[in-house]
Amino acid sequence: MRIASWSWGGREHAGIVSPDGREATPLLVDYAGGAAMRLIEALVRGEPLPSANGPRIAVDAITLRAPIPRPRRNIFCVGRNYHAHAQELSGSVFRDNLPKEHQWPMVFTKFPETVVGPHDAVRLPGRAVSEQIDYESELAVIIGRGGRDIPAARAMDHVCGYTIVNDVSARDVQVRHNQWMLGKNCDTFCPMGPWIVTADELDARDTRLRGWVTPAGGERELRQDARTRDMIFDIPTLIETCSRGITLLPGDIIATGTPAGVGMGFSPPKWLRVGDVVRIEIDGIGAIENRFE
Amino acid sequence: MRIASWSWGGREHAGIVSPDGREATPLLVDYAGGAAMRLIEALVRGEPLPSANGPRIAVDAITLRAPIPRPRRNIFCVGRNYHAHAQELSGSVFRDNLPKEHQWPMVFTKFPETVVGPHDAVRLPGRAVSEQIDYESELAVIIGRGGRDIPAARAMDHVCGYTIVNDVSARDVQVRHNQWMLGKNCDTFCPMGPWIVTADELDARDTRLRGWVTPAGGERELRQDARTRDMIFDIPTLIETCSRGITLLPGDIIATGTPAGVGMGFSPPKWLRVGDVVRIEIDGIGAIENRFE
Repeated sequence: MRIASWSWGGREHAGIVSPDGREATPLLVDYAGGAAMRLIEALVRGEPLPSANGPRIAVDAITLRAPIPRPRRNIFCVGRNYHAHAQELSGSVFRDNLPKEHQWPMVFTKFPETVVGPHDAVRLPGRAVSEQIDYESELAVIIGRGGRDIPAARAMDHVCGYTIVNDVSARDVQVRHNQWMLGKNCDTFCPMGPWIVTADELDARDTRLRGWVTPAGGERELRQDARTRDMIFDIPTLIETCSRGITLLPGDIIATGTPAGVGMGFSPPKWLRVGDVVRIEIDGIGAIENRFE
Repeated sequence: MRIASWSWGGREHAGIVSPDGREATPLLVDYAGGAAMRLIEALVRGEPLPSANGPRIAVDAITLRAPIPRPRRNIFCVGRNYHAHAQELSGSVFRDNLPKEHQWPMVFTKFPETVVGPHDAVRLPGRAVSEQIDYESELAVIIGRGGRDIPAARAMDHVCGYTIVNDVSARDVQVRHNQWMLGKNCDTFCPMGPWIVTADELDARDTRLRGWVTPAGGERELRQDARTRDMIFDIPTLIETCSRGITLLPGDIIATGTPAGVGMGFSPPKWLRVGDVVRIEIDGIGAIENRFE
């Protein structure tokens, strides 16, 4: 099943999208406090979804929002979690800012307010804030049933589904503050979508993830192309790690890190500029495409 | 004025506490979504506070909660922000994990769900998660009027008031993940209170902050004693930094860092154990006191 949030006719809706991604059916759910969250909670409780609240409509006719437009709290984000990307980082401005060994995941957060929709614009924060804006194509895990101290062996039972995020990053800000939070949290720095694919339809532990950049006035370039099985810390390990002493809640989001091919990894680096478009596609989920303004 | 949240008679209340800290007056405010937030928003708009919703009651008879019991999003937390504490860190397990220069603040976040009241218990997460639990006495700034790219010269106009937090930290978890988030976010790791003192009554840029630990079965020990003017980055600079490209919102909380004297700084280190009590007092605000269980 594909759970989505969208705007249409001047109102907000949540519901399901057909398997071919072409039609959306709004469901009867109270929008206050996040309709998609109500659907996730119903799934966690094993309840049937609410009934339809209107006719099916073409996805082309609606404005998709992030499936969880305003997460209940900051998003968990994992750094340096693909082997080839770790190699790429070790030759970058981060070479003195990383632990030598890959024994534990690096986790930071993004504010709920950074989240924008799968086709919304991302606002460059201005050169006074950063001159090194970069993309990070990532698979995001949506937690269903909450819990604390979840062992990896049971972690997949806590997964509701998957979506795509672009963990947009200001590299110069990340490096100079040492802790990464500020460089990850400029307004609009978390495009997300196009929907949540539930875990019964996709085992995201091994799927293909690609990221393209179309520079303003240029040709589309494939920059990132990897399989999620190349993660250093797999999804069950990330859930185990993030729940150590910390109660995970339904609707929590864990962005699982990006593979090699970020702009920082090129020589010279390829920073994002006004008019650039970043497209991220994950097999079994769909695609998001965001223009930088 | 002192804005507080409390439980009494099986209900949640928000209102004001008398200047001597002895009496609380509940105000007529919708509790849903955070009553103290409604009061902050009224102050920001320059509106009068709502009228009283009941008789004054002795503070000794109520259970104070954190003034903002569930912040709207993660709390901004500043690391290494007092000169003597920076010196203390440089001889600790963090010696390889810090930038050499103090040019930019280090900022990370704590989840809203870590917040507990000024006299609530803090739960040690268990030795499987951490064996190095530490306290950090801190002044916290409550943002009133929101804004983005706020210059330091106008930053104090955005301050609603001040409260106290204990930025409880699992040192071993902080170090091994390099990014500090996980080691700062075990459940109950953010005691806060006892109330918000509004900025018209206290200029927290220079006030005294003290922290004591009473080890289980032992005598109370003064561990931290500093003035906030010894911050490396002062409050206006922190607001300027946290708002660079990031829209601050009313009710946002910035914990401004801890002075020297944390448990990690002793040789051997003094980690918190079951039954220890940590008391933090800031002149002009009050005190919080939390038992570790």
